[in-house]
Amino acid sequence: MTYCVGLLLDQGMVLIADTRTNAGLDNVSTYRKLTIIEKPGERVLALAAAGNLSMSQSVVGLLEEGIEDAETGTIQKLEDAGSLFQAVQLVGRAVRQVRSIHEPGLKEAGLSFDVSFLFGGQIAGEPMRLFMVYAAGNFIECGQDAPFLQIGEHKYGKPILDRAVGYDSDLYDALKIGLISMDSTMRSNLGVGLPIDIAVIRRDALEAELVHRIEAGETYFHDLRERWSAALRAAHMAIPRPPYGQKR
Amino acid sequence: MTYCVGLLLDQGMVLIADTRTNAGLDNVSTYRKLTIIEKPGERVLALAAAGNLSMSQSVVGLLEEGIEDAETGTIQKLEDAGSLFQAVQLVGRAVRQVRSIHEPGLKEAGLSFDVSFLFGGQIAGEPMRLFMVYAAGNFIECGQDAPFLQIGEHKYGKPILDRAVGYDSDLYDALKIGLISMDSTMRSNLGVGLPIDIAVIRRDALEAELVHRIEAGETYFHDLRERWSAALRAAHMAIPRPPYGQKR
Repeated sequence: MTYCVGLLLDQGMVLIADTRTNAGLDNVSTYRKLTIIEKPGERVLALAAAGNLSMSQSVVGLLEEGIEDAETGTIQKLEDAGSLFQAVQLVGRAVRQVRSIHEPGLKEAGLSFDVSFLFGGQIAGEPMRLFMVYAAGNFIECGQDAPFLQIGEHKYGKPILDRAVGYDSDLYDALKIGLISMDSTMRSNLGVGLPIDIAVIRRDALEAELVHRIEAGETYFHDLRERWSAALRAAHMAIPRPPYGQKR
Repeated sequence: MTYCVGLLLDQGMVLIADTRTNAGLDNVSTYRKLTIIEKPGERVLALAAAGNLSMSQSVVGLLEEGIEDAETGTIQKLEDAGSLFQAVQLVGRAVRQVRSIHEPGLKEAGLSFDVSFLFGGQIAGEPMRLFMVYAAGNFIECGQDAPFLQIGEHKYGKPILDRAVGYDSDLYDALKIGLISMDSTMRSNLGVGLPIDIAVIRRDALEAELVHRIEAGETYFHDLRERWSAALRAAHMAIPRPPYGQKR
């Protein structure tokens, strides 16, 4: 399992991805699921993956090698894409290409082709954009009304995002809320776990402002988890008890 | 969709069920999913259902009519079950009986037999117990370590339960926390909605202390939703921003 969340705000973008992978409960490991592609001053792109690890790694590998354009024969890479829209189209093509290779074999094994990606960033001269790419290679774009996208085990961590994040949120407040969302998910699903990779990209900076891995035992994140638990307990204590008590 | 939560505490039991059913987004309706069976002073039982409405209604209908014992030919009802364990076994038998009738037809239609139940209460001379019954008619019992069970759309509302409920929680605090859990679910899944049916059964009372329907627009629940949203926003504001800021 995996949980990744991307937030697209007025001040910039935050991406958070856990690193746990598991093939059954008895085969748990740590893999990086967040990739940053950077040409400082020209473009900064980020890609986070969820789903079958062998499939998502194949997609990332294909994007690194470059995809041949069937018509012109040129090799296309994210580093050279002319726009973010062309870049996300390229991610979609990579997904479809990997799917066409592996889906028949997966089906024979009774498995489904199950990957999804968050992909976003900024290219000089363009606005910052964030997309979610589905297993069919199609994609949607993040808007301002619900300024976040999630992939993987998304339900446990959604209530806090629904309530606390707005397009005008401060970039590091959004990072904090994203980490709370990750914490809620980790508490409820053992398939999501530390370390956590985070990236913060400030709008128009055209390079990552922060790329960091939160390891188990790190003070800030440990403190955040404790404070959030205490705050939740205090929050419900402040609400009056239900007034119902009469028998029907 | 449905969301039901049952809490088994030192002081007693709380059951909360929404009433929304939908066959597609364009066919939404309200059905009671919480049934109370009471012989005051002798037994009080509660049954909450999730999943395919026609299947869960058939199970409830079968339990109301009574199930014939294949060996003795007697009709067995929840009202007469000798113990809570025998009662939950009867619920499981009803599930298997409905399944055996309908599963072939469902399969032909490309559907699966999808129901689950929360079932619990107390019979004079026995402890209070709470069970979750699966679509195969098997069941698990709620323990003190995680003193709640959920059926239906359970993920959005689980983080608050994980953090805020303990076996020693006050009965009406637990009801409040259950309503917060329901609120989180309703905000994230349109398939879960008002009105909400609630039941509170105090341990050893052998009758329901409270059976109530929360209708849309009810002041207390509206106020709870507002206060909880405000409290969540305040809770994350009180946590310091992440200290990360150095470039890698």
